[in-house]
Amino acid sequence: MPSYTAPAKDMQFLLQEVLNVTEAGVPGYEELEPAFTAAVLEEAGKLASEVLAPLNAVGDAEGCVLENGVVRTPAGFKAAFAAMKEGGWTALDGHPEHGGQGLPYLMQCVVGEIFVSANMAFNMYQGLTHGACSAIQAHGSDEQKATYLPKMIACDWTGTMNLTEPHCGTDLGLLRSRAEPQADGSYRITGQKIFISAGDHDLAENIIHLVLAKAPGGGEGTRGISLFIVPKFLVNADGSLGARNAVSVGKIEKKMGIHGNATCVLDYDGATGFLLGELHKGMRAMFTMMNEARLGVGLQGYAVAEAAYQNARAYAKDRLQGRAVTGAENTAGPADPLIVHPDIRRMLMDQKSFVEGARALTFWGASLIDRHNRQGDAAADGLIGLLTPVIKGFQTDKGFEMAVQAQQIFGGHGYIEEQGMSQFVRDARIAMIYEGANGVQALDLVGRKLAADGGRHVMGFFEMVKAECKAHDGDDRMKPFTDALKAASKQLQAAGMFFMQNGMKNPNAALAGSYDFMHLMGHVCLGLMWARMARAAHVALDAGAPDRAFYEAKLTTGRYYMARHLPACAMHLARIESGAEPVMALDAGAF
Amino acid sequence: MPSYTAPAKDMQFLLQEVLNVTEAGVPGYEELEPAFTAAVLEEAGKLASEVLAPLNAVGDAEGCVLENGVVRTPAGFKAAFAAMKEGGWTALDGHPEHGGQGLPYLMQCVVGEIFVSANMAFNMYQGLTHGACSAIQAHGSDEQKATYLPKMIACDWTGTMNLTEPHCGTDLGLLRSRAEPQADGSYRITGQKIFISAGDHDLAENIIHLVLAKAPGGGEGTRGISLFIVPKFLVNADGSLGARNAVSVGKIEKKMGIHGNATCVLDYDGATGFLLGELHKGMRAMFTMMNEARLGVGLQGYAVAEAAYQNARAYAKDRLQGRAVTGAENTAGPADPLIVHPDIRRMLMDQKSFVEGARALTFWGASLIDRHNRQGDAAADGLIGLLTPVIKGFQTDKGFEMAVQAQQIFGGHGYIEEQGMSQFVRDARIAMIYEGANGVQALDLVGRKLAADGGRHVMGFFEMVKAECKAHDGDDRMKPFTDALKAASKQLQAAGMFFMQNGMKNPNAALAGSYDFMHLMGHVCLGLMWARMARAAHVALDAGAPDRAFYEAKLTTGRYYMARHLPACAMHLARIESGAEPVMALDAGAF
Repeated sequence: MPSYTAPAKDMQFLLQEVLNVTEAGVPGYEELEPAFTAAVLEEAGKLASEVLAPLNAVGDAEGCVLENGVVRTPAGFKAAFAAMKEGGWTALDGHPEHGGQGLPYLMQCVVGEIFVSANMAFNMYQGLTHGACSAIQAHGSDEQKATYLPKMIACDWTGTMNLTEPHCGTDLGLLRSRAEPQADGSYRITGQKIFISAGDHDLAENIIHLVLAKAPGGGEGTRGISLFIVPKFLVNADGSLGARNAVSVGKIEKKMGIHGNATCVLDYDGATGFLLGELHKGMRAMFTMMNEARLGVGLQGYAVAEAAYQNARAYAKDRLQGRAVTGAENTAGPADPLIVHPDIRRMLMDQKSFVEGARALTFWGASLIDRHNRQGDAAADGLIGLLTPVIKGFQTDKGFEMAVQAQQIFGGHGYIEEQGMSQFVRDARIAMIYEGANGVQALDLVGRKLAADGGRHVMGFFEMVKAECKAHDGDDRMKPFTDALKAASKQLQAAGMFFMQNGMKNPNAALAGSYDFMHLMGHVCLGLMWARMARAAHVALDAGAPDRAFYEAKLTTGRYYMARHLPACAMHLARIESGAEPVMALDAGAF
Repeated sequence: MPSYTAPAKDMQFLLQEVLNVTEAGVPGYEELEPAFTAAVLEEAGKLASEVLAPLNAVGDAEGCVLENGVVRTPAGFKAAFAAMKEGGWTALDGHPEHGGQGLPYLMQCVVGEIFVSANMAFNMYQGLTHGACSAIQAHGSDEQKATYLPKMIACDWTGTMNLTEPHCGTDLGLLRSRAEPQADGSYRITGQKIFISAGDHDLAENIIHLVLAKAPGGGEGTRGISLFIVPKFLVNADGSLGARNAVSVGKIEKKMGIHGNATCVLDYDGATGFLLGELHKGMRAMFTMMNEARLGVGLQGYAVAEAAYQNARAYAKDRLQGRAVTGAENTAGPADPLIVHPDIRRMLMDQKSFVEGARALTFWGASLIDRHNRQGDAAADGLIGLLTPVIKGFQTDKGFEMAVQAQQIFGGHGYIEEQGMSQFVRDARIAMIYEGANGVQALDLVGRKLAADGGRHVMGFFEMVKAECKAHDGDDRMKPFTDALKAASKQLQAAGMFFMQNGMKNPNAALAGSYDFMHLMGHVCLGLMWARMARAAHVALDAGAPDRAFYEAKLTTGRYYMARHLPACAMHLARIESGAEPVMALDAGAF
């Protein structure tokens, strides 16, 4: 069975030496002293290794069961959920006014990575709740906040997001769920929602569904959509639970992975709902949570890859098979460990260099969200808006690819379910799909984010890359990083230029290259992260840090990423510059 | 539920217009007249669509069950197996002396693709038997051939291959199964074999296991290995079945996919076995079947992708979501079909252009095996030896990637098991692992095949590419093909040169780039196939062929492959030229 240990050292390095949190000037970050974050990481790591990780395979094998209209989670989930609540882990960045600890969102992500690596399906119950809390925090009335947030931040009640219907997912303008206004100010909600993660379960007393539906008078398409709070059990004025609401579980989907999380069809049959935020502004309310939600999925992408990598690494050191081509190394044994073989190392280095780069990008992204939320930094908001589709799309694609590679290291054993490597692959797969399929992320990036505010944010990004390279002019040790990053950044700019020159007269010329652009930008982002990490590693080495091996490994891993992954940028650019014609030339009928 | 239709038109195009089988001068090919091959394709397609494809999901959901030591296959498999036998499909290229139809191996592959696309797990029962027949045909005594082949060619008895043991797969020198010679000339086989596909089942009266084991006196490592015939039921002199042999099923593995095929642990406890071929030459006997077996797995790679593509294409035309960015197309409906969106088309074109190219490469590879088997063509044998790891490794990697992409087109629905797209992904995954994991294919290619016979075969391949390009000098219509192919071929040569210059002093410099080389060569091979297909399409168009749309789609699809996929070659070359250092620099302890 797979095991998991939180990469606390690497996380500390990012927080304290790359992001330099205590000196970053973000309100609240001053509390993130090394001793404090180390303690958080240690405690979260303990819960993850000892409680959550051992349940990962259980959740996969047992799945959730719908019995008499109620969903039962796998054995052990209830106790683990209780342990998570008791540890205060669900309330980390919740508003102190409602019982939260008020920590920065960054810490929510750091801890979130640990929990996702250990048990992605399990962590979704609290993850979805976190998203629902953010929506209520941002758009709820004082009364709604008081009614729901304390219970939800504590995860006594959990939350869900209800967008998708059988005939529409991406194109929400088509949705059919209706909200009829009632005399008492509430609404009657009717319709069917599908793919509702954590849609029902036995882990909490109540479930607060956030539901998109159309109320009369809003017009066609997405403009008519509003957002409603629809509790599973209505809440009495004194906060106690009242009548069961008219929402029922139609079925649980049988999925490729994340079996431990109940993905439900929910049928709303005149259920009582309460408007959240403004009438007919439901889409806008949803979109305010988008960056956080998508960053959270991008985090899943590399967090599952991290768990898969840890196990592949252990197997590669342990399994004896063949001899090193340069001469036997384990001469006392019948064969050498797999890790002596260059192609095994290639796969391990791919995984390691991706995961560490993606972690840096995700933490940086989380810090931008904090800068916006805690100090109203508009530039940070624009930048994270630009980076979000990259973090979501690139990281989940690559995370899946890396989980597949980790499985590959096990040979035939990787294909056997009991090894657990298959589960990582099957679980990681969903992250490429939900919260906006990755093609939609690419569309968002190229169709909206590049041009947002006159292109100011992408220009700012390029300036940032340029400044990073310039800061190391003449530093030979940094050349492997800055040379590759400069070249990749130029390629990204050339791609943007191609879109500008061709996209106006033919939008397909931009959209046909959108996916490649997302990946090209992903590599540039990770290249930038590696340059920053390399700089921090040199600072530590120059200062005579005691754990030299860690910093030297960091530099070696980064050089690998630059040498072996940034060459993908030229390929993406070539594809982009081939334009719309190859993609669009074939008649639909000729497929 | 997914459906499947054999791509008969494309197969005919390859046979009759690209390979020009009837004029190829290969003994037996003269029978492959268009009317004959069309009839074969039609009948095979009917069996596949009506009988095999509907059982694919059944096999996945039910799996195989071990009850009282006997394996039960999923509902419907028995009747389907009977239908396959009755149609004579198992005997297609079997030797006529033993009841086979004596058709070329090429036709076995053509029909094999159809059956694999329809139901990969099911087709493995006869596929493994085919491999065992080839081994007995090549190495068996006349008596062994007479005893086993007629029954096995008819699939009254099926076959298996037993190589892997718990502690060794790739490194067979470590194997522990023992063969003790008996006074009557037989051997007593003792040991445990794992991952035995079709290891037990209820589809046939008997199962003929081919088992690698060590007999005394053979020395260390792989030199001591011999190959044995170990029937589940011993065969009496009159051909009737005798005593149950001492081989039992330890368990069935619970796997990520191909649930319909029983992957068994087989325990040999002094089972009676008969030497097949020469004593201590078992590895050589296995290797004679290697090209066919690996080509068969490379075929699985694209055959599953074909099935996945067919369903993704149908979904993309049917599912209404969003509007074309260039203006609504389905104005009478609530939204446009997915296929209007450039990024959906990108995925469909990726799949289509890969599958059609891989089909051409596989059929060409099969024809090289026929040239060797039927006319002793040593150059063809050398060439297919070179191409085999590429066909296996590149095509299964890409086939999996394309199945994932097909699933992606379904959005969230693709993640739900009942749609069937998850099964394609899970089934396709194994092809990257078994019959030599793809990293081992890359090692075989770069470590052995490139240098084989003084590099004669790879030189021959380069000459062939050059000749193809030269044949179209001055033909502007062919420029998109020949320009890209020339550039890619130069990159491949540069990679080979890098290995030559650096691999001698440091073999890791070659092995660290082996995987990229395999992929680079895969793209060059598919580029060559696309050039040949384009040439054939132009010939047909120039001759005024009636189905112009088919040939024009062929050209458009090929141009897509050249424009959007061959740019990967430069990336692979850059990675290769980064050498061993980035891959090997990190201490094993620093991972």
